[in-house]
Amino acid sequence: MAKLDRAFNPRVLAIVGDSGFFQWIRSHSDFKGKLYSVQVNPKTIERIEKMGIENYTSLVAIPEPVDLAIVAVGRKYALSVLEDCIRKDVAAAHFFTAGFSETDTQDGIDMGRALTDRAIEAGFHLIGPNCMGLFNPAVGLKQMGGQYVGAAGPVGFISQSGTHAINFSLEAHLQGVDVNKSVSFGNGTVLDAAEYLEYFGQDDGIKVIGMYLEGIREGRRFLDVLKEVSRKKPVVIWKGGRTQDGGRAIASHTGSLAVPQDIWDAAMRQGGAVTAPGMDALIDTLKALLYLNPVYGNRVVLAGGSGGQSVAITDAFTEVGLKVPPLTRESYDQFEEFFSIIGGSYQNPIDTGNPNRAQMKRIMDIIEGDYNIDNIVLLMYTGTGGPPGLEDRRDEEIQSIVDLRNRSSKPVMVTITVPFLPKVVGEARTLVKKLQDGGVPAFTSLDRGALALRNTLDYYQFQKRDD
Amino acid sequence: MAKLDRAFNPRVLAIVGDSGFFQWIRSHSDFKGKLYSVQVNPKTIERIEKMGIENYTSLVAIPEPVDLAIVAVGRKYALSVLEDCIRKDVAAAHFFTAGFSETDTQDGIDMGRALTDRAIEAGFHLIGPNCMGLFNPAVGLKQMGGQYVGAAGPVGFISQSGTHAINFSLEAHLQGVDVNKSVSFGNGTVLDAAEYLEYFGQDDGIKVIGMYLEGIREGRRFLDVLKEVSRKKPVVIWKGGRTQDGGRAIASHTGSLAVPQDIWDAAMRQGGAVTAPGMDALIDTLKALLYLNPVYGNRVVLAGGSGGQSVAITDAFTEVGLKVPPLTRESYDQFEEFFSIIGGSYQNPIDTGNPNRAQMKRIMDIIEGDYNIDNIVLLMYTGTGGPPGLEDRRDEEIQSIVDLRNRSSKPVMVTITVPFLPKVVGEARTLVKKLQDGGVPAFTSLDRGALALRNTLDYYQFQKRDD
Repeated sequence: MAKLDRAFNPRVLAIVGDSGFFQWIRSHSDFKGKLYSVQVNPKTIERIEKMGIENYTSLVAIPEPVDLAIVAVGRKYALSVLEDCIRKDVAAAHFFTAGFSETDTQDGIDMGRALTDRAIEAGFHLIGPNCMGLFNPAVGLKQMGGQYVGAAGPVGFISQSGTHAINFSLEAHLQGVDVNKSVSFGNGTVLDAAEYLEYFGQDDGIKVIGMYLEGIREGRRFLDVLKEVSRKKPVVIWKGGRTQDGGRAIASHTGSLAVPQDIWDAAMRQGGAVTAPGMDALIDTLKALLYLNPVYGNRVVLAGGSGGQSVAITDAFTEVGLKVPPLTRESYDQFEEFFSIIGGSYQNPIDTGNPNRAQMKRIMDIIEGDYNIDNIVLLMYTGTGGPPGLEDRRDEEIQSIVDLRNRSSKPVMVTITVPFLPKVVGEARTLVKKLQDGGVPAFTSLDRGALALRNTLDYYQFQKRDD
Repeated sequence: MAKLDRAFNPRVLAIVGDSGFFQWIRSHSDFKGKLYSVQVNPKTIERIEKMGIENYTSLVAIPEPVDLAIVAVGRKYALSVLEDCIRKDVAAAHFFTAGFSETDTQDGIDMGRALTDRAIEAGFHLIGPNCMGLFNPAVGLKQMGGQYVGAAGPVGFISQSGTHAINFSLEAHLQGVDVNKSVSFGNGTVLDAAEYLEYFGQDDGIKVIGMYLEGIREGRRFLDVLKEVSRKKPVVIWKGGRTQDGGRAIASHTGSLAVPQDIWDAAMRQGGAVTAPGMDALIDTLKALLYLNPVYGNRVVLAGGSGGQSVAITDAFTEVGLKVPPLTRESYDQFEEFFSIIGGSYQNPIDTGNPNRAQMKRIMDIIEGDYNIDNIVLLMYTGTGGPPGLEDRRDEEIQSIVDLRNRSSKPVMVTITVPFLPKVVGEARTLVKKLQDGGVPAFTSLDRGALALRNTLDYYQFQKRDD
């Protein structure tokens, strides 16, 4: 733990053998600690020193303790760099270097095994190989230049894929869900998912954990750690390679063995994890878990659509196993006092075509107090999708929704439909941000909101069963 | 047919009783024929005449034959306007007026029945009531002001929901799929889905037909028409109200009765229709049917991802029932000559992390000739999601893909992942447009592309079975 803690929060970072584009040196221009380069070619050293980076021709020569080494050498040099890391007592090393077991060639398998065996023998914390390493925005440690710095979010992310780790950090950020720490661990031959999960479990800055996994080496140990961590905070797992052909694809990617999907799902449920079928579902589920009040029931009220939209959102929420039941007699009595039923219904969903939309505050009061309803879902619109005059009322409406969230113990969420239009996507992002700043998660399609709520219910049901 | 033909291509349009915002008069400012207003209130008439619109106090007084009347009066005047339409021998009338059977009140049911009975007795073509009517961009006939004019696309759309009809026209347009004619028919008490389907079936400007339905009044007649039309052109149907609670929602919306989903699906398949679970799937399936070469097999090659992305796209395509099989030995022999296997695999999916992406043309040649492969799916990137240097190569790559499409009999499609970022959505739209101008459909997520291809295969399998 102490060594992983140093690696995820490095004060001293060494980048070894990052030639060509200097991808790793460049991406750490915002690094808040001390950065060293290790290169042997005089011409390369000259270019690195011009960038203002201190270079040594050997890791061992660096004049202070190193918390993390990023190793980007050709695979035939990997073992000798590992020896240097061990000798220097570096806390951990991220091996970007690839070309091992995942190539399914004898050469690659042999070189990978030698690297793994030596690290295990020395008790060395090797991250990877064949991976994008660590991301900690608070200290400017990155997996790729385009990642953000400064904002320390509440999410821990553990990924067997570098592409998914990077895309997750960028897309979740756009959706208002920020990373605290993230790791892409690739082949995971020394440190595997269980070690990172255990570490994130005891990190109080991390409130929820997302994972992308293709396989697990030590199933028993992973499940034990998962059970322990999921008691303390939600863990959401996206499994890659869910079909037979997908299993072949993961074999080519990280060399993981395919696990039948039903066995995997049962094991994850047993461990208390929520499962997500892809990137969007993973982001949305983490968002729901972060922002929503605890979800203890499956009955949902849907308000703010009209006509066909009300039908579509009912289908979306009920197809994931939630209920959209009739309201109580008391609620219907209140609706009868003011609701225009021409072009609208208040059976549930509550239609708000003009003029009912102007009564949203009153509608929210009624549904908040309804005993048949556990969760409140409100539809909002961007751009051309909404009724006329909506733009002016929007900020006022956001404030009422935030007020509702603050006074209600019921989970409150919003769904938005986003047309394929840059201007409207900009509007939608502003809307999502304003709502989430007020504690109300907003989802960018009906289906995405429905699945996120369902997954959040699953999490709280697991917690209850266990108590 | 002749009367519907006049209604969908009106030269003379009368708008009756559209007070308040003048929503219907305003939305027809681009109408290419002659527009009359019918109003009785002197103050309203004054405002209408200021807009340069000729007004009569009765429909019957209009001095020439009327092809279509848009009726937007209160429901208690609906029957008397219908009498005027009959007396004037208007070809058809779109009743925007709502408040009938869909309110589930005795008043509404009675007024609706009287309207329906009178129209049927007179053999009058009543569209609606409770609907947004007709859209024909070529003549500037609209369901809402924001719809486009001028471009006559290849799609016919028939919808029981006005919201879905309008949203479909806007979103499909953004996705490069344009409407030829569209109808929102609401309660459909006189003219129902079958009549519109039959009409679109014989309209040579319409190449594919999309439908949103909540229910069918005369099932036998609808299936007979569907069977006949689907032999000539693809019909894609989105059914609203697929669950028990969704069934309650459609009852409040258009008064349709719920049909068990399995019975509905079986009937639609028997009729030769492809089914879509929502708006996105409907648009994507129409797009695939319009652009792709005939899809005769389920074996897919996936090229252009890398690592975790390759796994995700394999999962997406195989989870809808397609296959991502190994290639032939001959193809593998060709790949061995140049392919960098460090950080990449050519098993299928074909990974194109750097440097393999530079070889895309060579990769496309190999997979085009592979006997194990029926369909070609290529991944492209926008913005921050792609490898460095991609931007410069993109136009060249688009051209190679279009060339491939032109010389190959295999279906060729592209999937793009689109981050939630206005700038990148703009880039993605340009990319989609360039590809589709070259005849290659582009889909904005892996899952969306997978389902569209699967649905297209279903359509061609139905056609084959029937021959």
